Amino acid sequence: MRVLVIGANGQIGRHLVKLLKDSDKHEVRAMVRKQEQADEFKADGIKAVLADLEGPVSDIAAAADGCDAVVFTAGSGGSTGADKTLLIDLDGAVKSVEAAEEAGAARFLMVSAIQAHNRSNWSEKIRHYFSAKHYADRMLMNSSLTYTIVRPGGLTNDSGSGKVKAAENLERADIPREDVAAVLYAALDEENTYHKGFDLVSGDDTPAEALKKL
Amino acid sequence: MRVLVIGANGQIGRHLVKLLKDSDKHEVRAMVRKQEQADEFKADGIKAVLADLEGPVSDIAAAADGCDAVVFTAGSGGSTGADKTLLIDLDGAVKSVEAAEEAGAARFLMVSAIQAHNRSNWSEKIRHYFSAKHYADRMLMNSSLTYTIVRPGGLTNDSGSGKVKAAENLERADIPREDVAAVLYAALDEENTYHKGFDLVSGDDTPAEALKKL
Repeated sequence: MRVLVIGANGQIGRHLVKLLKDSDKHEVRAMVRKQEQADEFKADGIKAVLADLEGPVSDIAAAADGCDAVVFTAGSGGSTGADKTLLIDLDGAVKSVEAAEEAGAARFLMVSAIQAHNRSNWSEKIRHYFSAKHYADRMLMNSSLTYTIVRPGGLTNDSGSGKVKAAENLERADIPREDVAAVLYAALDEENTYHKGFDLVSGDDTPAEALKKL
Repeated sequence: MRVLVIGANGQIGRHLVKLLKDSDKHEVRAMVRKQEQADEFKADGIKAVLADLEGPVSDIAAAADGCDAVVFTAGSGGSTGADKTLLIDLDGAVKSVEAAEEAGAARFLMVSAIQAHNRSNWSEKIRHYFSAKHYADRMLMNSSLTYTIVRPGGLTNDSGSGKVKAAENLERADIPREDVAAVLYAALDEENTYHKGFDLVSGDDTPAEALKKL
């Protein structure tokens, strides 16, 4: 598959781009917002394209042109206001879905948040963030794409353990970003993840094993 | 029709409740958040129910029990943060849609904002607000309800002129809240508005005439 990684400059994005670059079966294209980020990827021999999630869908569709899959790993980050949450985590995500449809990239992986599908388990402090993720996920489910929605628990910068736990509903726990990237990589062509969403935390299974159990 | 007005204590809501109360063909129920607001309506002989848009869908569904139609006129208001925009204007609106489905209230009218369906015309200063309205509208369109999405221009507190203009796309202009309420009232059982959204500003037609032209 030729895979567009949206949010390639983020931490999950960087891990995923590296996995895809080293892969025999996939080809990667990194979508970033700034020229210097694109230049960095290009210096590492990785194809990079510029597009802004706050720009028009057509720009994102152009970035996805010729791709088979799109992975949305972008996020407005914890330090921005709720207005950016709406414009990046919700509208940016849905524009990416529309762009994938427009570009004919039929496979779409979304990085969401644990229990985003379940309003009663949204963290009180950042309910608005969960709300944005919730509706981005639902808009994806209403799209024509072959989706997978990955809902990780608390993200850490620890090195990946290579061992995870995935299920429709899990208790909140942590997971290294590197392991989330490994699950995204494994999910790309795992048909057992098609048209599904699942919570994801650290556990005892390899990504391949965890995804087979869904 | 028995009509639940959500956001009955707001300005459009109050106008609409009055029209419904004075109507021969409809019956009104005002949904409000605070007991003193409910008491005020009850003192005027209007049935009122308490429910919070930040609460569970089941509470809103209980408020809609036995109703044929739901009109969403609520809004977080201009003075709150974007987090409330997400939780009221988006999540509160969609919870109302789900509550209407749960309660079997098949008709749903949404008060949206002019050009909310068209990202390229969102006001730069409050793009996040338009984004919230946009997705609330799209979630309603994806629901099982017989919807009408009314997208008024700049809202004023002027007395209604009784004359409006409605079309799928209009240039931004003002409209008194009282006229928006009159259009909602006229749209309730106007089949020509079913499964449609339209922009709305002041104009030359009565609400009934304007809705016939859609």
